[in-house]
Amino acid sequence: MIRIETLPNGLRIATDTMSRLETAAIGLWVNVGARHETAEQNGIAHFLEHMAFKGTARRSALQIASEIEDVGGYLNAYTSNESTAYYARVLRADVPLALDVIADITLNPAFEAREIEIERGVILQEIGQMLDTPDDVIFERLQETAYPDQPMGRSILGTSDRVSAFGAADLRAFVGSHYQPGQMILAAAGAVDHDAIVAQARALFGGLAARTPSVFAPARFATGEFRAIEDLEQVHLALAFAAEGWHSPDLHVANTYAAIMGGGMSSRLFQKLREEHGMCYTVDAQSSAHEDCGLITIYAGTGADQVGDLCRLTMDELKRAADDLTEPEVARARAQRRAGLLMGLEGPWARTQHMARMLALFGRVPDMAEMVADIDAVTLERVRGYAGRLAGRAEMAMAVYGPADDAPEAGALRARLAA
Amino acid sequence: MIRIETLPNGLRIATDTMSRLETAAIGLWVNVGARHETAEQNGIAHFLEHMAFKGTARRSALQIASEIEDVGGYLNAYTSNESTAYYARVLRADVPLALDVIADITLNPAFEAREIEIERGVILQEIGQMLDTPDDVIFERLQETAYPDQPMGRSILGTSDRVSAFGAADLRAFVGSHYQPGQMILAAAGAVDHDAIVAQARALFGGLAARTPSVFAPARFATGEFRAIEDLEQVHLALAFAAEGWHSPDLHVANTYAAIMGGGMSSRLFQKLREEHGMCYTVDAQSSAHEDCGLITIYAGTGADQVGDLCRLTMDELKRAADDLTEPEVARARAQRRAGLLMGLEGPWARTQHMARMLALFGRVPDMAEMVADIDAVTLERVRGYAGRLAGRAEMAMAVYGPADDAPEAGALRARLAA
Repeated sequence: MIRIETLPNGLRIATDTMSRLETAAIGLWVNVGARHETAEQNGIAHFLEHMAFKGTARRSALQIASEIEDVGGYLNAYTSNESTAYYARVLRADVPLALDVIADITLNPAFEAREIEIERGVILQEIGQMLDTPDDVIFERLQETAYPDQPMGRSILGTSDRVSAFGAADLRAFVGSHYQPGQMILAAAGAVDHDAIVAQARALFGGLAARTPSVFAPARFATGEFRAIEDLEQVHLALAFAAEGWHSPDLHVANTYAAIMGGGMSSRLFQKLREEHGMCYTVDAQSSAHEDCGLITIYAGTGADQVGDLCRLTMDELKRAADDLTEPEVARARAQRRAGLLMGLEGPWARTQHMARMLALFGRVPDMAEMVADIDAVTLERVRGYAGRLAGRAEMAMAVYGPADDAPEAGALRARLAA
Repeated sequence: MIRIETLPNGLRIATDTMSRLETAAIGLWVNVGARHETAEQNGIAHFLEHMAFKGTARRSALQIASEIEDVGGYLNAYTSNESTAYYARVLRADVPLALDVIADITLNPAFEAREIEIERGVILQEIGQMLDTPDDVIFERLQETAYPDQPMGRSILGTSDRVSAFGAADLRAFVGSHYQPGQMILAAAGAVDHDAIVAQARALFGGLAARTPSVFAPARFATGEFRAIEDLEQVHLALAFAAEGWHSPDLHVANTYAAIMGGGMSSRLFQKLREEHGMCYTVDAQSSAHEDCGLITIYAGTGADQVGDLCRLTMDELKRAADDLTEPEVARARAQRRAGLLMGLEGPWARTQHMARMLALFGRVPDMAEMVADIDAVTLERVRGYAGRLAGRAEMAMAVYGPADDAPEAGALRARLAA
């Protein structure tokens, strides 16, 4: 059962008590991420997330780690374009401890100079790890290409240059601007007690002063191409099409379209590229939404001598979808999305994330019936129309990485698509 | 509630009905994997797993994919050293369909020549994807180094050479030798009906003739070193120590030791290498068990100029653990392992895997109380003793990949450890 409460300072609390469970998930979403950074600040939201674990007035880094791990739980965090989450998985009895630690690390990071230096090294290694992983590099480059010269296109990790420059004053300034109760959502699911969590949250966060909400600039999608010739086994190819944000009436249509094109083994791109032509192992299409924008992305890894055919076959599949998508395919996508929702929300961690996201975007948490109704409202006609507009506009960004000499130019592919 | 049944031909069935759920997981584990391959056959268990999806007498590849996806479910498979699993996640009403498809693809693959050629291309791309991912390459090389010239050391994917050579006759021969009911375990959890599954399994698998069980040779661990100097951002370092198999009385001690050394943020290696020295982003230690053998593996990614210090600090941590591990650390590892068990077994898929593994190894599925008792039986004295023997024997294999010129030699590190 979902219950929601808003503190006088604007911090929102959502709980979903799952009576059958003995464990819980609890997290604080601070709706501030890479999109809130200036170019100078690129990477600071993520740096801040790291520094939360490096000590507070009351706890050393080791204490932060061990207090939760001593009781068998775990504590983690992530930074995305629009939010930063600090969360824990614990047994029922340890929910108050988890909330206390999460509040402490979020509100009271110490930013000691020595710890900042050490963590800088850790983040530089994190960037190195990303750069050594073509599957990660390709999406970083795709994002930069689709959203050039703006926060939405910059790496969440930041660049080595910027990461090397941040100090305590920069971190404090970013916290001062953005870490405020109106941007915060506390969500908990599983073996949790709503009233106890609200009471504790009031004590921990109630003293924060409400301030002007943080904002970010709208994203501006651009067509374009990134190409890096590298000595790799595969050509890694990623395409992005301007698509729907969370508030778009077509979001569910876009999601259905992505599922049909590359959502599973029976999807069109999987069938064409892998099952018929054997030219890739991984191929998929996804619809990802942010507040005001979204992308449909397609990824495949293929051979140097196959990338040309793969690109052309992909354009042809996208093009013909406008004319020949079928009712059974739409019905299958609906069934997949409905079942995915049901399976996805069986666990407490997924429910916690879901509540936090819905509250941030819509100010409320829709129930399962409403979400299923949204999925079922997507008709064949709407998906075909969507496919036609996507192909006709051909607003595509492309990134290729690897032995990619034979990859067609993005412009040629866009022309083929819109022809 | 777990119920187990054995068909007259030896196929075992385990179900765990979770009355609160609307979805189910169901899978067939054929306890045959890369360890059952000869050198010539390397990669064939995995190739076979792929071919299961490429058509049967009754279903085309598209039908296999779409029958399950039409009802919102998904179907997948994996191959490991000792087993191959074919599994689905579906809604309650679709469990019989899922079982029918799983049985069909496992028992009746068509092995059409054209489909074999196509899938060969897919697997070669899968190998390419692995080779482009240093985090994967390093563990492949570590495994080869720790288990040289034997099935346990060979890649589950096989080599491009071998994969290029397999034909229908090879696949049929491997199935003929190993795909038999005594090697099979059907497991289902969630919204499932035990009696209905047993009745359907009897109809689908009851006709298979019992045969001599498949066996594999015991693994032989070796110390050694793999080093490849590559132009990467990070030096990827992996260490393996001869450790415990599933039947070892010390398995839980090894698991506890690995948790203390590198299982979480409060672990010794995380604290020393990342929190104190900032020389890596990822560092962890794991205990992995097979039937007759196991490894404790340590992984870290670090900078070219830091790998020497990282190696030496790691050896020193392993060495001093014999003398100074503490009761609170053992208590924390126990708590982590207990809670991990509880959280891990909340979902139907994890329960299905757990039952299949326990039945294969022990012929029965221990209950939660028994598993917790095993965890709690691990004492500080036993973990210290284990740490002392691990360091004293210094039976270590090592793999380094990246700008690794400054990585010490494995022999020097072993000497430092055993000194």
